[in-house]
Amino acid sequence: MNIVLLSGGSGKRLWPLSNEIRSKQFLKLLSDEDGGHESMVQRVYRQIAKAGINADIVVATSATQVESIRGQLPDDVDIVVEPERRNTFPAIVLAASYLESRKKMDPEETVIVLPVDPYVDVEYFETFKTMDARVQQGGADIVLMGITPSYPSEKYGYIIPGEGGRVTGFKEKPDEATARELIGRGALWNAGVFAFSLKYLMGIADKYVQSREFSDVIAHYADLKKDSFDYEVVEKADALAVVPYSGAWKDIGTWNTLTEEMKEESIGDVIMGEACVNTHVINELSIPVVVLGTQDLVVAAGQDGILVSDKHKSSYIKPHVENIDKRPMYEERRWGEYKVYDYSQYADGTKSLTKHVTINAGCAQDYHVHKYKDEVITVANGQGELVVDGCLMKLSRGDTISIRRKQKHAIRAFEDLQLISVQISEDNTEGDTEVFDWSWSARAAEGSDGKSQ
Amino acid sequence: MNIVLLSGGSGKRLWPLSNEIRSKQFLKLLSDEDGGHESMVQRVYRQIAKAGINADIVVATSATQVESIRGQLPDDVDIVVEPERRNTFPAIVLAASYLESRKKMDPEETVIVLPVDPYVDVEYFETFKTMDARVQQGGADIVLMGITPSYPSEKYGYIIPGEGGRVTGFKEKPDEATARELIGRGALWNAGVFAFSLKYLMGIADKYVQSREFSDVIAHYADLKKDSFDYEVVEKADALAVVPYSGAWKDIGTWNTLTEEMKEESIGDVIMGEACVNTHVINELSIPVVVLGTQDLVVAAGQDGILVSDKHKSSYIKPHVENIDKRPMYEERRWGEYKVYDYSQYADGTKSLTKHVTINAGCAQDYHVHKYKDEVITVANGQGELVVDGCLMKLSRGDTISIRRKQKHAIRAFEDLQLISVQISEDNTEGDTEVFDWSWSARAAEGSDGKSQ
Repeated sequence: MNIVLLSGGSGKRLWPLSNEIRSKQFLKLLSDEDGGHESMVQRVYRQIAKAGINADIVVATSATQVESIRGQLPDDVDIVVEPERRNTFPAIVLAASYLESRKKMDPEETVIVLPVDPYVDVEYFETFKTMDARVQQGGADIVLMGITPSYPSEKYGYIIPGEGGRVTGFKEKPDEATARELIGRGALWNAGVFAFSLKYLMGIADKYVQSREFSDVIAHYADLKKDSFDYEVVEKADALAVVPYSGAWKDIGTWNTLTEEMKEESIGDVIMGEACVNTHVINELSIPVVVLGTQDLVVAAGQDGILVSDKHKSSYIKPHVENIDKRPMYEERRWGEYKVYDYSQYADGTKSLTKHVTINAGCAQDYHVHKYKDEVITVANGQGELVVDGCLMKLSRGDTISIRRKQKHAIRAFEDLQLISVQISEDNTEGDTEVFDWSWSARAAEGSDGKSQ
Repeated sequence: MNIVLLSGGSGKRLWPLSNEIRSKQFLKLLSDEDGGHESMVQRVYRQIAKAGINADIVVATSATQVESIRGQLPDDVDIVVEPERRNTFPAIVLAASYLESRKKMDPEETVIVLPVDPYVDVEYFETFKTMDARVQQGGADIVLMGITPSYPSEKYGYIIPGEGGRVTGFKEKPDEATARELIGRGALWNAGVFAFSLKYLMGIADKYVQSREFSDVIAHYADLKKDSFDYEVVEKADALAVVPYSGAWKDIGTWNTLTEEMKEESIGDVIMGEACVNTHVINELSIPVVVLGTQDLVVAAGQDGILVSDKHKSSYIKPHVENIDKRPMYEERRWGEYKVYDYSQYADGTKSLTKHVTINAGCAQDYHVHKYKDEVITVANGQGELVVDGCLMKLSRGDTISIRRKQKHAIRAFEDLQLISVQISEDNTEGDTEVFDWSWSARAAEGSDGKSQ
């Protein structure tokens, strides 16, 4: 079995902690099993293992999320990067092509596709085994997961089951009376979880692509129809089956729904005065948040800003934050993370950017240049190594390095490195960064400056 | 007439904007006359001028407040620094000694002493003229200001008047019934505003000090009784008079009372969602604060932290913040200001401190050393000049200077300088900074390294 996780969404509904780069699925706000915190992505990964599912996992996503995924999931998870955002049908075809042409997956095997961020029980993943068996048994092109409805919702799609788990029809967003009637007939919510054989999907893909080869699908990605998998595949399939799941199933996309799942009333440096009622505070800043006598309130403080909202009003955040045009003030990278302390633009257009950069022990940045930025880096703590235009030097606390624009450079950490970086640039910083190959070990050993990695 | 402003108090009741160094009277949260904001100290200074009072002004305060006062009031205001905090009696004796021995004030002239932060009308200061005339008329050792009570308060002291404005007695914090009865007899609240001739006070001072000379009073300050002026002088005086004032008189010492006087519902980068009721937001940070659907709430965000409080609960803040032992993250200096971005302590006790320093055009730092700190300074914007161990160099955007511990240094700004400073130090940083004399112009002209300023 192969599992494809669809990781999309760069919304601001969990502003200030989510932004264009840090989608909600990467926020480490859920309680893990060791008394710490995990993100939605990490929770799903952990639950798949816990359900005893031995599957290869591929995440289909956009380039902006690669660093976060690499930072949060183990290296054995494959990442398929969509060249552009085009809805779920092209994304799933791309992932399937990857499984076939790069992973050499047996075409008879089952692929299960699901969103990366459902808030569910482990049983949700155990259901995959039944879905896999149903695919392998034959007679159904696609096997869906159906969620047992807990109320006659008007906002979900309903799957109408027939005999032997066959699907006889769908109903999108019915009114409440219809929903009630559908539930009486055993209808289930469509969770967007699909199981099929790789062979079946690639047969459909053939109608859209000239070559199944992954690099060709990438190259012609813009030709794939910008449509949902439901519309383009599921609704056109000859035979569909459904497997029910009746555990918890939530979309935690607002501060109100997220705080409902928090075990503690606060995360981070927070002081709650005694008279607080139904108040949740999440503080990612290094300064304390003090809350006194509040009620039904969520407070979220991060590098991008501070939200103070009545819980029931927190879902109306979007129009209020979508015009905030600040650059993201926090980024998770495969090698660590950075926080922006200050971002200033001066009268003549010159910009200065002050960041706190953490490079994790054993990790290294890409070898890169800034075309328009001069950079001064001061080592606040840790041990590491710097390469500038092919020359290596050791780094330790108190060292300062001035890197001029167009100088290729990278830093790697022997132990966690805390760096303060000040970048100064002219106005035009579009396409500022370019990345090059670099092999630390080859260079250190040979002192050469050839190209290898 | 001379005015002595008593500037005390380093409370945390307006945390996070007030701290040990930045007392509430320095917060620029009140509306000035030009559509901007002014602090309580600046408001009092402006109102004195507006009342048409032509007086020299002396501020009696502690060393920690000198930089803020210099940053907020014109240079013609004198500052008398109390060697230690010892209550109002010693502070007033010290200021009087300064007026006599340093300012050579005529001993017959009137001195008026008041707290630095009353929130009042201009008429309050116009009352000073009547108080001055009453002192000069003779027959009263001390003339008090009496506030016309607006309700039978149990928390103030009452002045009981007799014929011709004479004072016949006092009553501290009476119960409500007594207060009502006192008000019926024309009693007034004691505002802590005292007028007397310099001669009278120095006569009393003679009982406590061996020499009236300012430097001697400074040297023997610890011998002055740690008592209030009310207790040590007013209550022992033979003849007291009172002059009434019936305008506004408030102590804005809590977020609730302060926000009542704010003309706008927010200051700083704030987005208020439409459904906010009786909500005030003050944001001194460079990231936005978004507030949605809140009621009776005050939000204050500053370098030291973030407060979210029900307005009626905001006066209970003290116990919740008094154990926050972070260093002040914002300081106003005579030459500008600094914000702390990051303050970290590492496993071996080493500390790093990252600051954004602004030096105002035309201003200069003291010539100083750090005994235990190495410092790296990067110029983010502006033009200026640096001296290190007697050597001068120009500074402009993009320059980086590494200053090792024990190197004497100072920076002055030709145009506003924005600096990023990273200081790295061993654990023991007590008494780290020492200041030396330095004359920019003399050195620039002579290139010498003698001592003069």
